[in-house]
Amino acid sequence: MHPEVLDKCKQASQASNEVANCPTTKKNRALNNIADSLQNNKKSILDANSIDLGILKSKDHYSTAFYDRLLLNEERISSMAEGLYDLAALDDPVGEVTGMWKRPNGLAIGLVRVPIGVIGIIYEARPNVTVDAAGLTLKAGNAVILRGSSEALNSNKALVEIIQQSLIENDLPAGAVSLIEDTERTAAHDLMKASDFLDLLIPRGGQSLIKTVVDNSTVPVIQTGVGNCHTYIDYNADLNSAVNITVNAKVQRPGVCNAMETLLVHKEIAPRFLPGVLPALTRLGVEIRGCSQTAAYSPEVKPAADQDWKTEFLDLILAVKVVENIDEAIKHININGSGHSEAIVTDSYENSRKFLSRVDAAAVYVNASTRFTDGAEFGLGAEMGISTQKLHVRGPMGLEALTSLKYLVYGSGQIRE
Amino acid sequence: MHPEVLDKCKQASQASNEVANCPTTKKNRALNNIADSLQNNKKSILDANSIDLGILKSKDHYSTAFYDRLLLNEERISSMAEGLYDLAALDDPVGEVTGMWKRPNGLAIGLVRVPIGVIGIIYEARPNVTVDAAGLTLKAGNAVILRGSSEALNSNKALVEIIQQSLIENDLPAGAVSLIEDTERTAAHDLMKASDFLDLLIPRGGQSLIKTVVDNSTVPVIQTGVGNCHTYIDYNADLNSAVNITVNAKVQRPGVCNAMETLLVHKEIAPRFLPGVLPALTRLGVEIRGCSQTAAYSPEVKPAADQDWKTEFLDLILAVKVVENIDEAIKHININGSGHSEAIVTDSYENSRKFLSRVDAAAVYVNASTRFTDGAEFGLGAEMGISTQKLHVRGPMGLEALTSLKYLVYGSGQIRE
Repeated sequence: MHPEVLDKCKQASQASNEVANCPTTKKNRALNNIADSLQNNKKSILDANSIDLGILKSKDHYSTAFYDRLLLNEERISSMAEGLYDLAALDDPVGEVTGMWKRPNGLAIGLVRVPIGVIGIIYEARPNVTVDAAGLTLKAGNAVILRGSSEALNSNKALVEIIQQSLIENDLPAGAVSLIEDTERTAAHDLMKASDFLDLLIPRGGQSLIKTVVDNSTVPVIQTGVGNCHTYIDYNADLNSAVNITVNAKVQRPGVCNAMETLLVHKEIAPRFLPGVLPALTRLGVEIRGCSQTAAYSPEVKPAADQDWKTEFLDLILAVKVVENIDEAIKHININGSGHSEAIVTDSYENSRKFLSRVDAAAVYVNASTRFTDGAEFGLGAEMGISTQKLHVRGPMGLEALTSLKYLVYGSGQIRE
Repeated sequence: MHPEVLDKCKQASQASNEVANCPTTKKNRALNNIADSLQNNKKSILDANSIDLGILKSKDHYSTAFYDRLLLNEERISSMAEGLYDLAALDDPVGEVTGMWKRPNGLAIGLVRVPIGVIGIIYEARPNVTVDAAGLTLKAGNAVILRGSSEALNSNKALVEIIQQSLIENDLPAGAVSLIEDTERTAAHDLMKASDFLDLLIPRGGQSLIKTVVDNSTVPVIQTGVGNCHTYIDYNADLNSAVNITVNAKVQRPGVCNAMETLLVHKEIAPRFLPGVLPALTRLGVEIRGCSQTAAYSPEVKPAADQDWKTEFLDLILAVKVVENIDEAIKHININGSGHSEAIVTDSYENSRKFLSRVDAAAVYVNASTRFTDGAEFGLGAEMGISTQKLHVRGPMGLEALTSLKYLVYGSGQIRE
């Protein structure tokens, strides 16, 4: 195994035992202390960040969106610190007894929430993920091994140094939060194969990063993020709600995973709904890619290609399709969706129930914007991305998602007959 | 993709939608009907099984244990049927609302238990797993694709034919339970890569089968079964309990995953405990592989090799080690154990708490035999193996382990500000 990866795996493994049994007050003190320290060391963080930004700018091509994700400033550092203060204030999920019962032979069996152990996170050039992920995993009693991208290396090193310093000052092992500094592929590859040390690997980033991790990891993975979300406007939808929800789901923040990518419209409401909503969307800068029936309602509609129904645009682009009925809409969603967030706008009791039970996704909405799929909006507190898989956790991953369970069995000499 | 695998994946995918939304009464009727049908078709099952047995016997080498696992008889068929009747009587996990809350903006958010979808099971030459796995997955509203081993092919085909016939008679899709009949490796390999269709893959069998699946699957996997279980006898253990629990955990059924493989003994109790228990174990046919301190208590102790501490013997062999204190015992378990079932025998309140919190395993016992880790013994009803991983489910996998969750969001026009 890659020597740095092996070294940090071993340290994390040892640290995880200590953190797992650490009292809540001590973890919270460390979180608050890290937050203070981020505030007090803004200059050194920004210096490191400007090295990363300088290297990026020296390249021939880079996107402004990429630059923006990499950029730190005083406000963004304060916001990372705020996130940690908030996290310290949340309930500790560790130690919760989720059930306890007695068996006929007298054994008392309890199920208690425990940390997962060692969690690996592979992510792209967003330094805020470094602090975010470290805070969440630590609060849930885990050790974490971070593997950011080369473009953010100096920023990440500065942040992890501050975190580790605070851990040591709070009598916690520095190995509880570590950063793989070798940004070559072999290091990431070996982390994906480190199933002797890692209990979980979470990729945070775009579709290709997630696919690489899923295809190569022998460590259990939680897939997050890809959201090809739909809104279906039923035949009897309230027109006002339908327009508001459509516009909000597409336009309010198009670059995030819970934004709508495809609008499905019942053929009976299309003549009343599309002539109003299409120009409204166009005025807001949205490019419409529609089926042939949609095109009849606006000259600005471009023809949708097959691939458009499967695409997470993450941009001001919307695919629009007129459907025969709710069944066609549900079928279209279950075939093309990514299992993230799906909405129906309807006044039909029966269709609301049908949509909720038949659509297979992490979050299914009636008469609301898909944009609410989010840990804070759902009331779960902080989150570590949105799971689009069905195992372990689905939807926003709060602190509980970073825990496992353990059976405690209290006996008095019982043996099996 | 392998044509048979692709074909059955597509059928299962379609069938899963129907089964997921099937009322409990209908699923139970089908389960009872399959059970009846197994009872009524014993002859054709036994005929198919005797073909498998005949092929096995024509080989130069085969183990009697393997033959016994492959063997069906009237009693074993009845026992499979009984399992299905019991399953029909269990509560349906699907549809349970595990929580529902209201957000300040008026959104009502509920979390409901839903089927996982399509589950693949790869297993060894045990025809009873065919019926067992089909019943459990069906009850939890899933479609299942079974991939048994070549040695049981005729038995499995006969069983799946009966199951599918019952499904059709109960107006359920035959594709809800299917068998990959091509027993070549390529078929299994393609099933492990079928992440477009499968939501979960469960390997049921020995360590090498599990490792192959974990190393090659891009579908999420639940690891089951490997149990390198320990019992630690603390300095102040009740001697009578210590002997009973030790003997029970090792001897009552040595071939199963929850049997003890290593005994750890506090040095202070060793002089009172080992001189009694070692001959008792030897009399029951147990081979003792001990550390040097253990060897001092009985001439029959063979020296333990390093590898013995890591081995799941599944046989009448026991590794025995004298330890300095509970900390050494816990460290030994956390390094060498497989995270299955671990027990302490003690009269110390403090040490019982320490062991429960510090030992990292699916089930941790105080003063009881590890042999109780089992779905029925824990009161969960039927089970699909014991999970030794920390994601999704840990310990005995009952029906709930074969489900996922879905957020239902009830709005009245909410959009995100």
